[in-house]
Amino acid sequence: MKRAIVLLSGGLDSATTLAMAKQEGYDVFALSFEYGQRHTIEIASAKNIAQNFDVRQHRVAKIDLRAFGGSALTDSIDVPKHRSEDEIESKIPVTYVPARNTIFLSYALAWAEAIGARDIFIGVNALDYSGYPDCRPEFIDQFERLANLATKAGVSGERFRIHAPLIAMTKAEIIRKGGELGLDFSLTHSCYDPGSDGAVCGECDSCRLRARGFREAGIPDPRPCLSSS
Amino acid sequence: MKRAIVLLSGGLDSATTLAMAKQEGYDVFALSFEYGQRHTIEIASAKNIAQNFDVRQHRVAKIDLRAFGGSALTDSIDVPKHRSEDEIESKIPVTYVPARNTIFLSYALAWAEAIGARDIFIGVNALDYSGYPDCRPEFIDQFERLANLATKAGVSGERFRIHAPLIAMTKAEIIRKGGELGLDFSLTHSCYDPGSDGAVCGECDSCRLRARGFREAGIPDPRPCLSSS
Repeated sequence: MKRAIVLLSGGLDSATTLAMAKQEGYDVFALSFEYGQRHTIEIASAKNIAQNFDVRQHRVAKIDLRAFGGSALTDSIDVPKHRSEDEIESKIPVTYVPARNTIFLSYALAWAEAIGARDIFIGVNALDYSGYPDCRPEFIDQFERLANLATKAGVSGERFRIHAPLIAMTKAEIIRKGGELGLDFSLTHSCYDPGSDGAVCGECDSCRLRARGFREAGIPDPRPCLSSS
Repeated sequence: MKRAIVLLSGGLDSATTLAMAKQEGYDVFALSFEYGQRHTIEIASAKNIAQNFDVRQHRVAKIDLRAFGGSALTDSIDVPKHRSEDEIESKIPVTYVPARNTIFLSYALAWAEAIGARDIFIGVNALDYSGYPDCRPEFIDQFERLANLATKAGVSGERFRIHAPLIAMTKAEIIRKGGELGLDFSLTHSCYDPGSDGAVCGECDSCRLRARGFREAGIPDPRPCLSSS
């Protein structure tokens, strides 16, 4: 069985990506990050999802992106609420974390090389998160090229592949795909600004994109956003 | 004054790189990593060098590369000693750490973007460390391309530059350059396998390359390797 690293945030995109990697027959090693984000509930969700899909290993790497600053997800900047769909689609939000996916993929690459995996899955999506530069296909392609230059395995002629199976899908399509693959959506968590009890805010970009996705997919969200239904 | 991030390991290459960035007039933010390496003496050296050059800020990021395995620098594999110069030059050594420079540059990129720096300095060297894939010019060029696709600043038309001023220099040339710029070599530390008291082993690739470099430069090493003089 071929090994793969799957980046797992605990949200529904990465959970669907994990389900797709399993369906393709990979022996999955899941990797999550504690990066000073406000919501450690993401990590709890990631653990439950990893267990639910019976992955080979699940590692949580601690990295202190807060030390570098520059994002509402790691600093004390307010998470924006009630942005219009135009705004969500056109502007890089303050929730952008500098170089986040570059750092995540670098860690995945290190682990992949060490365990002999040559496939790395990441649940980025260019449609709903068009504002994030590191969610675009050109970023993924460029990282794949880097991976094959940066490593002993790469220069030895083995080939790393970065899989971003959701990159061109709408949220509704992702949700339908997850549903087909038996993903238990109640395990997934997407809010940028949950309460201390883990309740979703219903108002951030992530809650609103999730709510719209479920609505368009015609599937009820078992963990709905409070104010967006 | 333009800001720059300088990756600072505590060895003589990164210290010389820092001296060059200062000479070019950059306002320097130095970044070191504690990555489960055996020798925390590197960090102590980095702190002394940063202080000596009066950098604006020096941060030490903790990352647990040990968790990923795959290297004599982070695992319990023995550091090779007494390799021939042919071997040093032709074989990727077990001291190679998977994706290390990719991870280091990713962190540097995150910090750079957050503080408005667009220049990142790294002291890699392709001649003496030809065995490490992530010390080659093609790796550096590729990372620079990635940086400009991966970030809000990059896609907004600002340009990140990755500077690797030592990349084509011999160790002797690096040492001469450091000497010209007033680098206090006694602050630098290069051994892969120091004793618990910080004494260098004199036998690893790094000690031997350093000793040869000082010999060829015709400069005495104030912190000489024990068995290579």
